[in-house]
Amino acid sequence: MPDAKIILVEPQLAENVGSAARAMANFGLVDLRLVNPRPDWRSDKALAAASGADAILDNAHLYPTLAEAVADLGVVFATTARPRGVAKEVIGARQAAQSAGGWSAAGAGVGFAFGRERIGLTNEEVALASSIVTLPVDPAFPSLNLAHAVLVIAYEWRAARMAAEPDGLPFRAETTLPATKRSLIGLFEHLERALDATGFFRAPDNREHMVLALRAMLQRASLTEQDVRTLRGVIAALEGRPTRPRVLPDGTVTTTRGER
Amino acid sequence: MPDAKIILVEPQLAENVGSAARAMANFGLVDLRLVNPRPDWRSDKALAAASGADAILDNAHLYPTLAEAVADLGVVFATTARPRGVAKEVIGARQAAQSAGGWSAAGAGVGFAFGRERIGLTNEEVALASSIVTLPVDPAFPSLNLAHAVLVIAYEWRAARMAAEPDGLPFRAETTLPATKRSLIGLFEHLERALDATGFFRAPDNREHMVLALRAMLQRASLTEQDVRTLRGVIAALEGRPTRPRVLPDGTVTTTRGER
Repeated sequence: MPDAKIILVEPQLAENVGSAARAMANFGLVDLRLVNPRPDWRSDKALAAASGADAILDNAHLYPTLAEAVADLGVVFATTARPRGVAKEVIGARQAAQSAGGWSAAGAGVGFAFGRERIGLTNEEVALASSIVTLPVDPAFPSLNLAHAVLVIAYEWRAARMAAEPDGLPFRAETTLPATKRSLIGLFEHLERALDATGFFRAPDNREHMVLALRAMLQRASLTEQDVRTLRGVIAALEGRPTRPRVLPDGTVTTTRGER
Repeated sequence: MPDAKIILVEPQLAENVGSAARAMANFGLVDLRLVNPRPDWRSDKALAAASGADAILDNAHLYPTLAEAVADLGVVFATTARPRGVAKEVIGARQAAQSAGGWSAAGAGVGFAFGRERIGLTNEEVALASSIVTLPVDPAFPSLNLAHAVLVIAYEWRAARMAAEPDGLPFRAETTLPATKRSLIGLFEHLERALDATGFFRAPDNREHMVLALRAMLQRASLTEQDVRTLRGVIAALEGRPTRPRVLPDGTVTTTRGER
């Protein structure tokens, strides 16, 4: 899928340019466009903030105006606080990223424009956009750092892309196989025998309730076979029996008196 | 609704602390906890990066260790690259924010822990967490700035909150409250003391690995305070000490020699 473009309009602080490049690289965006940046935009401060994302700065394109920066794009989102008096769709970052992904997959050039640190985008610049993207900031403290705004968009772009391409998902949790129920029951019975021997269950009523509670706890832990062996070793040690767990030919786990 | 806590473990750069505070303020989070920060953590650089979010720095709490920083919390998410060899649920930021909101609505203290800039969290620190949160970074450029990681979490927290609240529906509350980390750590230490006494840990290498594995298992079980009391009674019984768990006035659980 083609890339979304990140367009910074007259960024004032070189470290924001560098930090935006780093945020882009983190989430797989590579195409940075700068509209009339300050002469020091690629200074040591920018490079330090980019933290290795130099290639994005090296390949950045410069334009004199936003109009020229978006000339080849089909869909442009203006990321800005909600402006007054501009009749334009206002959407959230997630919805914008999904929409952008759809347009991009369809072959449209897609860009996100970000305004100046202090004064944002002019109404004329906003007018170049298809939609306005607003982040759900606290009204009591709404001023986002420029690179932070880029970061949220880059993050949502990648999240939308990965939701669309589930095969690449690194979200997937480790797949560890759970212990068989047979092993679990062996563990439960081992624990309960050990507790019976200590007089832990004072009253028969209490026993049933406690056994259920203990079994429920251990079930919730999603134990693996290795976990079951470990816990059986723990119980045996606490019982004062120096034992090692063993796996029988049928796959069940047992503990037998071992050697010291 | 109570707030989620942002916990920075040994942040090295003052501007990252300030920038994290700004990101928190943008998305309505106020409670910052710092574990063993550098002495200059509240320097002019930090204040400049905070860009007006001074109140968050003013009200930050300092702790010597992550264990102490999370002692009063019930649910802790470790934001980190996926560690090897730690058997723990790995989820995305959106899922974590939704889960955190549910726990918070139910009254649990909720926190997100972030590691050091270069080396992240230790395995022991990760072991304190209920789940690991991983951001969908590009594997070719995975190193996120610390404040950027905080920003994504703060953004998702607020997005989840706003998604949950527009029609007056709060986050769906979880039904059973988890034990505090203080109680869990007390349980871990009780078990490990008991095992030390039996010679269960044959070699020191083995001990560290086994302790992490046991803690991970018990964390996964989502134990309540009642569960912790039950398990401490189980351990004490197996140790051969007829004991009853007791709740001290400060809420911690202990076991003392009881009567037969």
